[in-house]
Amino acid sequence: MAWSVGRICKGFLRLGLLSKQTQLIPVTSVSVGTVRTAVTLPSFLFPKPRDFSLPNSSWGLEMMRMYEHYNRQCEVETEGGQKQEGPWQKLPSYNRLLKYATGGVYLSEMIQSKARLFTRNIRNPGAAFEYVLFVNSEEQKCVCVLQAGHLLEGPPGHVHGGAIATMIDTVTGTHATILSGPVMTANLNINYRRPIPLGSTVLLESSLEKKEGRKTFITCRVTSTDGSKLHTETSALFLSISASHLLSGL
Amino acid sequence: MAWSVGRICKGFLRLGLLSKQTQLIPVTSVSVGTVRTAVTLPSFLFPKPRDFSLPNSSWGLEMMRMYEHYNRQCEVETEGGQKQEGPWQKLPSYNRLLKYATGGVYLSEMIQSKARLFTRNIRNPGAAFEYVLFVNSEEQKCVCVLQAGHLLEGPPGHVHGGAIATMIDTVTGTHATILSGPVMTANLNINYRRPIPLGSTVLLESSLEKKEGRKTFITCRVTSTDGSKLHTETSALFLSISASHLLSGL
Repeated sequence: MAWSVGRICKGFLRLGLLSKQTQLIPVTSVSVGTVRTAVTLPSFLFPKPRDFSLPNSSWGLEMMRMYEHYNRQCEVETEGGQKQEGPWQKLPSYNRLLKYATGGVYLSEMIQSKARLFTRNIRNPGAAFEYVLFVNSEEQKCVCVLQAGHLLEGPPGHVHGGAIATMIDTVTGTHATILSGPVMTANLNINYRRPIPLGSTVLLESSLEKKEGRKTFITCRVTSTDGSKLHTETSALFLSISASHLLSGL
Repeated sequence: MAWSVGRICKGFLRLGLLSKQTQLIPVTSVSVGTVRTAVTLPSFLFPKPRDFSLPNSSWGLEMMRMYEHYNRQCEVETEGGQKQEGPWQKLPSYNRLLKYATGGVYLSEMIQSKARLFTRNIRNPGAAFEYVLFVNSEEQKCVCVLQAGHLLEGPPGHVHGGAIATMIDTVTGTHATILSGPVMTANLNINYRRPIPLGSTVLLESSLEKKEGRKTFITCRVTSTDGSKLHTETSALFLSISASHLLSGL
């Protein structure tokens, strides 16, 4: 089993955007298996963490085009000329586990450690995973635009099957967390159809298939950005977890 | 699909140990989609590449213990006191795609590039994947001892599900390549049972289930080194590939 608790920690900022924050905080506090203390620090001592899913100089034209395609749908203008939330929401992405909450800064036990999230463990922009996630609550969909760097090689000139699985787990796990709260990955069934060339930009589309009790079934397709080439098809199963499940897993 | 051609390139050294080298060279030469030239260079100009699966200072006691357990079975002593090959063979592991062949050095088109294999893309010893593979031809098994570093984090304090999938794809793909020659990963069906704590050492055991025509079915279990804890169970399907399959995939 691969818990999605880490994603949940990152997810507080996302879920803040999605107004589910208060619902998830207590569960996740238990899930980390630690008693957290609320520490209020002046911002200059503890600046807001960097969002690694914003454009940088390594992003190619296709990555930028896809980012702008979804980003411009995060805020729309009414007939009266007023700005309001659009159908998509951009999810920030950090390189370590931490969360912020109203009234203070909550530190996970990992924040002081050297640990880094697997998908953000290389500092050199463009070398590994460059990606950004957007969620559409109404359509219960989540998309990820991925630019695969040269450090992700498996077959000559192509992305490692495990690197593809890593992004599928990240995107479907994030989506399941948003849909169902704290979950663990129970199964990933990945069909590899066509290799992904290093340096190319692809689209991951995660869709809710169904929810049955504790089970959340998600499907995910990885395609070329125009949808003409199918790279992988995945069915994923996530199980909602309670404090007892989390603690028993330790 | 995730080709295992990259593994095959690395595999020449393995397969040299397994005396299948000449059989695979022509197929792989096509698979890379390039015409290779044999370049004979003095060794001081082109030293043998580093094997990253040898012990280093980051290896913990359990990693060393498991390495020695299999390594001492790579060479056995006869009653007459002579040394001979044992049931297990250690497979070297590099951080880029290249192969050496008798009489010269063969360079892949990637060797001059910045590309690095996904599982060896971080130089800091112990920070990410520390692993070593051994193969048992008679039992048609392959094992991998993995020490998971702090840069592989998913859930707080535990290994990312994608990092686990990456090692499963690497080990089963390597095993399938040794058993069937050039293959591509067609399916990975991974059941996650129990999370893997960061810093811990686990054992991946890959077994041949069956071969049917172009299909090679492999199963893989990830357990604690004493086998008492099951972390994941996987069934994997690999398809043997020919030149036409490889070229049509581009």
